[in-house]
Amino acid sequence: MPKLLRVNMSDRTATFEEVPKKYRQMGGRWLTSSLVCDEVPPLCHALGEENKVVLAPGIVTGTAAPTSGRISVGAKSPLTGTIKESNAGTSFGQKLARLGIRAIVVEGKPKEKGRFWLLRITKDGASFAPADAWLGQSLYAAVPSVLAQHGNPSSAGILAIGTAGENLMAAAGISFNDLSGRPSRYAGRGGLGAVLGSKGLKFIVVDDRGTPERELADRALFDEGRKKLAKALTEHAITKPKGALNTYGTAVLVNIINEAGALPARNFREGRFEGAAKIAGEAIFAGNKERLGKDLYNHACSPGCIIQCSNAWHRPDKSVHTSCLEYESAWALGANCGIDDLDVVAELNHLCNDYGLDTIEIGGALAVAMEGGLARFGDGARAIELLHEIGRATPVGRILGSGAVVTGRVFGVERVPAVKGQNMPAYDPRAIKGIGMTYATSTMGADHTAGYTIAPEILGVSGKLDPLDAHKTDLARTFQQVTAFLDSTGHCLFIAFAILDIAEGFAGVIEECNGALGTRWTGDDATRIGKEIIQMERGFNKAAGFTPAHDRLPAFMAREPLPPHNTVWDIPDAELDRVHGA
Amino acid sequence: MPKLLRVNMSDRTATFEEVPKKYRQMGGRWLTSSLVCDEVPPLCHALGEENKVVLAPGIVTGTAAPTSGRISVGAKSPLTGTIKESNAGTSFGQKLARLGIRAIVVEGKPKEKGRFWLLRITKDGASFAPADAWLGQSLYAAVPSVLAQHGNPSSAGILAIGTAGENLMAAAGISFNDLSGRPSRYAGRGGLGAVLGSKGLKFIVVDDRGTPERELADRALFDEGRKKLAKALTEHAITKPKGALNTYGTAVLVNIINEAGALPARNFREGRFEGAAKIAGEAIFAGNKERLGKDLYNHACSPGCIIQCSNAWHRPDKSVHTSCLEYESAWALGANCGIDDLDVVAELNHLCNDYGLDTIEIGGALAVAMEGGLARFGDGARAIELLHEIGRATPVGRILGSGAVVTGRVFGVERVPAVKGQNMPAYDPRAIKGIGMTYATSTMGADHTAGYTIAPEILGVSGKLDPLDAHKTDLARTFQQVTAFLDSTGHCLFIAFAILDIAEGFAGVIEECNGALGTRWTGDDATRIGKEIIQMERGFNKAAGFTPAHDRLPAFMAREPLPPHNTVWDIPDAELDRVHGA
Repeated sequence: MPKLLRVNMSDRTATFEEVPKKYRQMGGRWLTSSLVCDEVPPLCHALGEENKVVLAPGIVTGTAAPTSGRISVGAKSPLTGTIKESNAGTSFGQKLARLGIRAIVVEGKPKEKGRFWLLRITKDGASFAPADAWLGQSLYAAVPSVLAQHGNPSSAGILAIGTAGENLMAAAGISFNDLSGRPSRYAGRGGLGAVLGSKGLKFIVVDDRGTPERELADRALFDEGRKKLAKALTEHAITKPKGALNTYGTAVLVNIINEAGALPARNFREGRFEGAAKIAGEAIFAGNKERLGKDLYNHACSPGCIIQCSNAWHRPDKSVHTSCLEYESAWALGANCGIDDLDVVAELNHLCNDYGLDTIEIGGALAVAMEGGLARFGDGARAIELLHEIGRATPVGRILGSGAVVTGRVFGVERVPAVKGQNMPAYDPRAIKGIGMTYATSTMGADHTAGYTIAPEILGVSGKLDPLDAHKTDLARTFQQVTAFLDSTGHCLFIAFAILDIAEGFAGVIEECNGALGTRWTGDDATRIGKEIIQMERGFNKAAGFTPAHDRLPAFMAREPLPPHNTVWDIPDAELDRVHGA
Repeated sequence: MPKLLRVNMSDRTATFEEVPKKYRQMGGRWLTSSLVCDEVPPLCHALGEENKVVLAPGIVTGTAAPTSGRISVGAKSPLTGTIKESNAGTSFGQKLARLGIRAIVVEGKPKEKGRFWLLRITKDGASFAPADAWLGQSLYAAVPSVLAQHGNPSSAGILAIGTAGENLMAAAGISFNDLSGRPSRYAGRGGLGAVLGSKGLKFIVVDDRGTPERELADRALFDEGRKKLAKALTEHAITKPKGALNTYGTAVLVNIINEAGALPARNFREGRFEGAAKIAGEAIFAGNKERLGKDLYNHACSPGCIIQCSNAWHRPDKSVHTSCLEYESAWALGANCGIDDLDVVAELNHLCNDYGLDTIEIGGALAVAMEGGLARFGDGARAIELLHEIGRATPVGRILGSGAVVTGRVFGVERVPAVKGQNMPAYDPRAIKGIGMTYATSTMGADHTAGYTIAPEILGVSGKLDPLDAHKTDLARTFQQVTAFLDSTGHCLFIAFAILDIAEGFAGVIEECNGALGTRWTGDDATRIGKEIIQMERGFNKAAGFTPAHDRLPAFMAREPLPPHNTVWDIPDAELDRVHGA
């Protein structure tokens, strides 16, 4: 029987419960958001004892479904004050799923301040151990040490928060192991690492040794579905082996978005960055080739991924400098800070991973601080120093670690490109209107992954739209709904490229779910379920005090034209309010 | 003809306009809130060019009405994000009124960053001068120097922002001169000093030499009214000469509120402070007597005040250490930080005045930072150091200068006793329920002056209520409405003690207004006008994204009992929503 593991940090108990009937078809974001909505008071303090962190693998996570190794993390966010779901690709969720655990609910708060714990989960149960020995340590040092002491490095997955989470910083992410055991896979956004920090839970080690395959309601149907999806992924130019993502990683977008005039440079002052080509996916590929003497294609973040977009950047001595260097990170720590040196960007990225930080929020905070005069745009050495300040939790480090909005408040900066407290990712909404509608209306704050309209607006996936065209209300709605469903299946959002263009691939996803759950969903159910999830999340946000007035971009974007298109943000409020209804 | 002075800092123009008809009966808060509602987009950035600062003397300010020297300052607040009105007692507003200026509207924003200006207003007009020479200076040094250069110390009033405002800190207040020319009278709350800072306006010097008396519609009626009010003020035990306020200042409340178990100690952990008697009004009186060798009664903050509650604390060498040391300041910088040494509290108060800071918000921020481990409760020397950090705008200083909520976010502190971003003043709502309803439902964030139910709940003014009784919905409504009216007349809120107990005094206030304006208001109009003001302000806040979910106290107060009564905050949400209606 699938279980729900309830972990109470007030009294340090871990209890397995039967999954209530209403949750049995749910996984991923659907389940995290449902549990948060059912159990967390919307007006609680995000770092208070009433908040809960929910971890849930997707509906097909832990099966042979391709590219389905996502784990969702949900809570009330200390960064945004909204409900939050952030997911990561890692074997951690697959192991959890194979242990029959549909969700972990972490609740309560230790009476004693400053102590931290480790939770170990195996087929025999769950138990706690002190984690104080690793406090203040680099995650790259701590994680192997924890695994050596409490897990089997070959069969264990690990969740960890870094010093940022220990210090309750709102830009603290949650790291998961990659396939080399590195703490490099992040549920980065929304400060969920700080919520775990407030609960004194620093590590979760999960070992699925001795567990059988996941049970499926209709294995034949499931197999049919996963094969269709695998075929689509293997054929699509973006997702296929040695395709765009496998070769250049997500940073393949740097040149594309720069060309489109929508790569935010220097805290969203410009839409093109003169150093873009130097931090692009092509530059990573070429740089690795030069340093390693061979073509290096990317690797999977979790077993069973066909896309394999996870890259690594190497030092001149051939050692790995950082993995993974995503498009968002290369932009946030590069173009957005005016930095064009890949070795500097890689170091900043590594430090974010090592201290347990969201690269997007930190890049945003650095850029806002630069705007406020704390450093010069382009000063990589100073940016590295500032990252260490965050790691040491000095006052200036704590400011930056609190994210871009707090940094803006502290330094009196008006130009903070955030929605609902979260810094925008790497697409300027003045130059790509649909993604701006996603930023404005997502339940999560500014979040490209909530409805990646870049696919049609820039990449020509499922047709090609003019990024400057303003009529994207239906697009923003549909993309957010389908995404909420995909985030619940456990599939990586990147399967969207293939299943939007190849209908059989989408049919395959539905068949996988039906095969796993015994349901009879059709394609329409994906939209229906997605819509339900979003409306439920909006209900939480409404009770937490959010209104249509929060579904807006910052005022300066309606005033300040963005070069090179010299366009402003001009989507009428009424259209934003039509995305999800009033 | 009464005028409106529009000051545009984008192009540095100052234009006198006719007062539009709809504003002609308005003054003080009524006028500032009306102009803000009419001219400021609710979703603008508080430090952006679209925000405006409105200064308005009250309806009878500048006349012979007793205790009517208030000037209201309004804007969208960078601290709360709500509309804000903060008022101060000073001759500044009286001079403005005598010059026939009903309001100054400061708008726009200089293109050039880092430059600051002075505005000089006389009967001959308004003109600008550079103020850069005084940047970064102590206000106690700058203000006399400005007056020597640009005004006539004997006839000029001066508004000034300090380094806190220059540095755009959300706890920056706006200082006005007292009758000795000191920058000690503050429109402290809501960070309005930062809004002026964002506009590059550092000083306003107003000189009313050569202006006649204010014109009044019916001088005989007015005189009748002011005499009634003067009589009430002269008779009431709290407001009369050598009465409670004139003898002990507002700090007379320290022992009273401590006795009631509602004096928040150490960041609202306890309702009694063991050092209360050492920082109380009685201790100030006794200490001054010991150091000066005589009884020292308090002085007026503006000409024509009967109450005269403004005190000064003297050093052993008889020099003035700080003026005025209010109850709120003695508490915020004393009990709330665990500090019981009057000389330390006086120094902290002086530094707040000197750097241009709201003492309540800074005391709150210090206490939250102490909670977060930045200093020990009670460590006065460290608190003084931290005040200087704010003055120097170091990173830690900028955090504190951003107020308690940001300080809490940066240091990961859950226990932040704030509503709508503003730290609570010196009454713990768990022990005095009515004032908690005011904190929750005020349009201004946690603000005791928005509806001072302490009068009946503690002081026995207009009857005596049990502070722990929870049935105060009507009380909280009526008090907020009447207060909004009083804040529009230009009278000090402290006349409320007398006019609540002495009906003739209240009648006198209405007659003063009718005499000044030619209106035929009755007592009911006070409530009607007050209600209109509040509903208008709530309209602004609603458009700015505020909902009933923001009319709440922080979650920890519903969970954590406050000694000695060991009561929690338990007013039902539905009652809070009934205060002003949904």
